[in-house]
Amino acid sequence: MATPADRIVALGGRLAQGGLQACLVPTADPHLSEYLPEHWAARAWLSGFDGSAGSLLVTADFAGLWTDSRYWVQAEAQLRGSGITLMRAGAPDVPDALDWVLAHLAPGARVAVDGRVLDLAAAQRWRAGLDAAGMNLVLDQDPVGDVWADRPALPGAVVFEHLPPYACRARADNLAAVRAAMHEHGAAWHLLSSLDDIAWLLNLRGADVDYNPVFLAHALLDADRVRLYVAPGKIDHELAARLAADGVELRDYPALATDLAALPADAALLVDPARVTAGTLSAAPEAQRIEVLNPSQLLKSVKNADETDHIRQSMVQDGAALCEFFAWFEAALAAGERITEIDVDIRLSAMRARRPGFVSLSFATIAGFNANGAMPHYRATASSHAEIRGDGLLLIDSGGQYLGGTTDITRVVPVGTPTTEQCADYTTVLQAHIALARARFPEDTPSSVLDTLARMPLWRRGLDYGHGTGHGVGYFLNVHEGPQSISVRGHARPHQGMKAGMLTSNEPGLYRDGQWGIRIENLVLAVPAERTDFGVFLEFETVTLCPIDTRCILRERLSADEIAWLDAYHVRVRERLLPLVDGAARDWLLARTEAVQAISDR
Amino acid sequence: MATPADRIVALGGRLAQGGLQACLVPTADPHLSEYLPEHWAARAWLSGFDGSAGSLLVTADFAGLWTDSRYWVQAEAQLRGSGITLMRAGAPDVPDALDWVLAHLAPGARVAVDGRVLDLAAAQRWRAGLDAAGMNLVLDQDPVGDVWADRPALPGAVVFEHLPPYACRARADNLAAVRAAMHEHGAAWHLLSSLDDIAWLLNLRGADVDYNPVFLAHALLDADRVRLYVAPGKIDHELAARLAADGVELRDYPALATDLAALPADAALLVDPARVTAGTLSAAPEAQRIEVLNPSQLLKSVKNADETDHIRQSMVQDGAALCEFFAWFEAALAAGERITEIDVDIRLSAMRARRPGFVSLSFATIAGFNANGAMPHYRATASSHAEIRGDGLLLIDSGGQYLGGTTDITRVVPVGTPTTEQCADYTTVLQAHIALARARFPEDTPSSVLDTLARMPLWRRGLDYGHGTGHGVGYFLNVHEGPQSISVRGHARPHQGMKAGMLTSNEPGLYRDGQWGIRIENLVLAVPAERTDFGVFLEFETVTLCPIDTRCILRERLSADEIAWLDAYHVRVRERLLPLVDGAARDWLLARTEAVQAISDR
Repeated sequence: MATPADRIVALGGRLAQGGLQACLVPTADPHLSEYLPEHWAARAWLSGFDGSAGSLLVTADFAGLWTDSRYWVQAEAQLRGSGITLMRAGAPDVPDALDWVLAHLAPGARVAVDGRVLDLAAAQRWRAGLDAAGMNLVLDQDPVGDVWADRPALPGAVVFEHLPPYACRARADNLAAVRAAMHEHGAAWHLLSSLDDIAWLLNLRGADVDYNPVFLAHALLDADRVRLYVAPGKIDHELAARLAADGVELRDYPALATDLAALPADAALLVDPARVTAGTLSAAPEAQRIEVLNPSQLLKSVKNADETDHIRQSMVQDGAALCEFFAWFEAALAAGERITEIDVDIRLSAMRARRPGFVSLSFATIAGFNANGAMPHYRATASSHAEIRGDGLLLIDSGGQYLGGTTDITRVVPVGTPTTEQCADYTTVLQAHIALARARFPEDTPSSVLDTLARMPLWRRGLDYGHGTGHGVGYFLNVHEGPQSISVRGHARPHQGMKAGMLTSNEPGLYRDGQWGIRIENLVLAVPAERTDFGVFLEFETVTLCPIDTRCILRERLSADEIAWLDAYHVRVRERLLPLVDGAARDWLLARTEAVQAISDR
Repeated sequence: MATPADRIVALGGRLAQGGLQACLVPTADPHLSEYLPEHWAARAWLSGFDGSAGSLLVTADFAGLWTDSRYWVQAEAQLRGSGITLMRAGAPDVPDALDWVLAHLAPGARVAVDGRVLDLAAAQRWRAGLDAAGMNLVLDQDPVGDVWADRPALPGAVVFEHLPPYACRARADNLAAVRAAMHEHGAAWHLLSSLDDIAWLLNLRGADVDYNPVFLAHALLDADRVRLYVAPGKIDHELAARLAADGVELRDYPALATDLAALPADAALLVDPARVTAGTLSAAPEAQRIEVLNPSQLLKSVKNADETDHIRQSMVQDGAALCEFFAWFEAALAAGERITEIDVDIRLSAMRARRPGFVSLSFATIAGFNANGAMPHYRATASSHAEIRGDGLLLIDSGGQYLGGTTDITRVVPVGTPTTEQCADYTTVLQAHIALARARFPEDTPSSVLDTLARMPLWRRGLDYGHGTGHGVGYFLNVHEGPQSISVRGHARPHQGMKAGMLTSNEPGLYRDGQWGIRIENLVLAVPAERTDFGVFLEFETVTLCPIDTRCILRERLSADEIAWLDAYHVRVRERLLPLVDGAARDWLLARTEAVQAISDR
C-alpha cells in the first residue's frame, strides 16, 4: 500500500466488509491537538495531504478531502493522482462533509468515525444530522486502523517540570483557580484532555509532538485530587513525588476509561465539548455534564507580570537571532551565493538554537519565495523548494520555544528589485498591521471585532486574506491558543473578550495565487492604557523585536501617524537589540532600523 | 391606586393570595413589539418608568426595575418615591433578574410571568434556571392584570393595503419566498407573531401602535394557505377579497390557540424563538419545532431596487422638511424667541406633516438641550423640558413614516457659543460617523465587526457610548428592524452578514452625564462597490440628506479624507434638496452646505 490511492482502495474494502457506507477521518488525536503524533496522523497517511487541517470522507465510490483556503493550493498538488477530490471548505456552493453525506447517502447508511478522535461538539452535530436523515453514526470502530499495518507507536518522550524563574505560577495556585471555576459552574469533577491545558495546569512540559512542549495525558480533577493519566516511565520518581505533594496522583494512560466508568452516575462533570472527544467521554456518566470552555483556557491566556517580563526577554533573544540571520542572508545574496528556501530554515533555526533559553522551534519555519509565499502555510521540502534569486519577495514565518516564552514572527524582505505592485501590496499589509498595533479599546471588547481595523486598508483596495489576524500565544506552550481570536469570522465563539495580559499575534497578510504572498507578524501584549469615566481601556504593546523592512514601502501612501508608529517601533527595536549583536548583525540592525522619516527627508 | 407605590402594594397582595413568591413583568406584548399598545404596558403602569426597555421584578419585600444604560438617568428620576430599586442592567456586579431570583428566593418558590408576553427564548432560560434551583415558573397567570382595574382595551385601528407604486413586491412573491425558506428548513407550518413580519409579508399596514404602521395579528402559514388572525372589522370586505385571492383567510384574533391545538402532533412548525411568546406557543404541538430566525427578517432587510428608489425620494422630502425646520429654528433663536424642546418637536413634526407621502412620525422626537441630550432616549414632556437658551448643544433625533420609506436622522447644532470641549466631542463623533460611512467591506461581513470603525475615534480618546451604532430600518415599517446590527456587543446573533440592499443607521454618539450629548445619524444603504479576485465588496451610500453642522468642528483634527467626505456629502445634499426649498430654507441650506475646505481656506 505505497500510495494514497492503494490505501483508499483498502479502506473501501474494509468498509464493505463491515457494512459501513462511509468513513470520516478527521485530523485529530484523542487530545484534539494541533500537532499530531504520527500514530494519529491517519488522514495524512491515507490521503498524502500533510497540511494541518482537513477531513477525509471515503465512501464506496467517492473520496473527498475538505480543507480550508489556507491549504487549497497545497492540497491540490498533494492529492494529484490519488483519486481524492479536493473539497474547498468555505467556498460558495461547497457543502460541508455532513451535508455531502446527507445529500449522497441513503437512509439506513452507517457512517464510521473513530470516536476517540472526534470532538464532542462535532459528534453531537453529526449524530443530530444523521439521526434526522435516518442514518447512523458509528463511533466504536476504527476502519483506518484496521488497514494501517505499519502504524507508528505512540511517542514516549520524558516529561519535565517547568521550573522557576521561568515558571511564574505555583502549581497549587493554578489548581486552586481551576477548582474555583469548577465550583462556580457547580462541577464536582473536571476532565481535561487538551495537552496545553494539562501542561499549564501542572507546570509540566514534554516533547511528544513537534513544536508544542506537551505530553500525552488526560487529567481528572475533583476538589482534592488530580489523577494524571500518562504512560509509565515518562515521569521519574522525584517528579512524581513533587506532584504527589500537590495532590497529583499518576495513573496509567488507558486507565482513564475505567476511572470515568467508576464515577457516580450523577457526577457533575465539567468538560469542554471542543476539547474532549466523544470516544474518551463514552465511558463517563452523562446525567450532569457541564459543557463549558475549559477554565484553564482563559486563565492561561492572561499572562501575569512575571511571565510578561520573561516574554520581553525572550523576544530580545529571538530578535538577536533574526538580526544575525538577516545579516547573513543579505550578505550571502549580495555575494551571489546559491540560497534556497531550505537554507533559510536551516540557517535561521541554527541562529535561534544558540540563544539562551531556546528549547525548540515553535512551528515549522515557512520560507516562501514569490509564488510559494502565496501559500500561507507553505513548507519547503527537500523534494520541492525554490531557490531565492532574481526579483521578488521572500516571506519568512518562524518562531521559537524558549523557557521564558514562545515566539512567532513573520517578515517579508525584498530580493533584487520588487515590482511597484509588490511594494503597493507590502505597504497595504503594513498599514493593516499598524492599524491593529495602534488600536485602543475597552477591556472585554470581543476580540473578533478588532480584526476590522487590520482588514480595512485591504478591503478599501478590494483585497482580503483567508486567515484570522490574531491568535493567542502560549507561555512556553502552544504557539496557537485561545480563547481570544482576532478574526471577523470568529464572532460566534465564547469568552473572546480582550483582557490585559493576553498575548496575541498581529498578522495581516495578502496572497496572490501563483505570484507572491505578504504577511507581517508581531506578537502584541494587551496592556492597560487608561481608566476614564467610560471604563478601562487597553492598548497593544508590540513585544516582538525585529526590523520591519522599509525598502519596499511606498512612502507616500503612509500617513504621518503610520510613519510615526513605524519609526518609534524601530527606535525600540534598535535600543533593545543593539546590546546583543555585533559585527555584520549590528550593521544590519542599524541600517534596517533607520527612520522612514529620515530616509524620506533626505 | 394612583401611584406606582400603591400598585406595587396591590400586586404584592395578589402574589401572597396566589401563593406566588415573585412576579416578573417584562416590557412586551404577545407580538414582542417595540412599541406596546397601552393594554400591554403593564411594566410602565406598575412602575411609572416609561422607557421602552426594562423588566420589573416584584417579591413580597422587593421591587426592582432592570433597564440598560440608555435609561439609567430617566429611570432614576421616574422611580423616585416608588420604592422600586433601579437595577442597572449591564453594569458590573449587577446580577440579571434571573440570577437575582436564584440568589434571593428559596427552593420551592413560584415565580409568575404572564406567558402571553414572555418570548420563548427567555421562557426557556428562566425555566432551566428555576428548575435547576428547585423553583417553579408559572406562565398561565397574570397577577398584574388581576389588580389592573382600568386596563385599557386593545386598539382597533383599520388595516390598509400598502399599494403600488410604493409597495414594490407582490404579496404572492413574498409568500413564495417565505415558503421556499420553510421548505429549506423542512417546515410544513410557520407561525408568525411579529407585527412587522406580518405587515411586510402581506403588504398590509395598520395603526394599532404609535410610530410603527402595524396591526395586531398572528399569521399561520402552510404550503397553500395563510390564516391571518385579526380582530373582526379591521379589514374591510374588499381588502379581504383581495387577500383571499392570495390564499389569505381571515380568522378572529383569539382563534389562533384553537387552530394551533388542532395541528397534527408531529407538525413541523417553524417559529422564531425571539419573536413568539411562550404563551402563544403553549397550544402548539412540540414534537417538531424548528427554531430559526423568521425567514421574513432577512428577506425584508434587503431592499430591492424599486424600494431604494422610493427611499431616496422620501429622503429628499424629509431633508426639505428639516431645512425648513432649521431655518425657522435659527431665525427664531436669533430673534430672541422663547423656544423649548417641546417647540422643536411640534415645529419639526409640522414641517414633516406637509410633505407628500408622509404618514406619521417613525418614533417620538428626541430634542435634548445640553444635559438632556446626554440621555440617549430622552423625551421632553409637558411637565419636564428645557428651554433652549444660552450656550451649548441641541440634539434632535427624529424621523418620519412615508409611504415610500422610513427615515431616522439625528443632528446636533450649536446654540450660542459651545465650549472647546463640546466642539472636540462633536468632532470625534463626526469622525466616528465618517469612518463607518466610508467603510468598504466584503459581502456577508458580520455587521457587528463594522462597529469597530465607528468606535475607534472615541476609544482612542478613552470615550465610548452604550448603544449600538447601527440598526436596520424598515420600508414604511418599523424604524428598528434586523437582522443586521452594527454593534460590537451584538456578535452572538445569527444572520448578521451585510448584504447589498440593507438599510442601516449610522449613529455613533457620546454622552457626558449631566453635561451634553452628541449623536450624528444618517441612514446608509449597502451597495455593491466592486468585484475583485477576493470577492464582492460593498460600500455604504448615505441616503439621508441634511446638512451636518460644521460650526462646531475642530477643523485641524479632521484628516483630508474626512473633509473630502464631508464636503462631497454637502455637495450632494445641496444638489438634491435645493429644488424643494426656497426663501429662508434655501438660504439656510446654502449656508450650511458650504464646504469645510472652502471655509478653512478663507
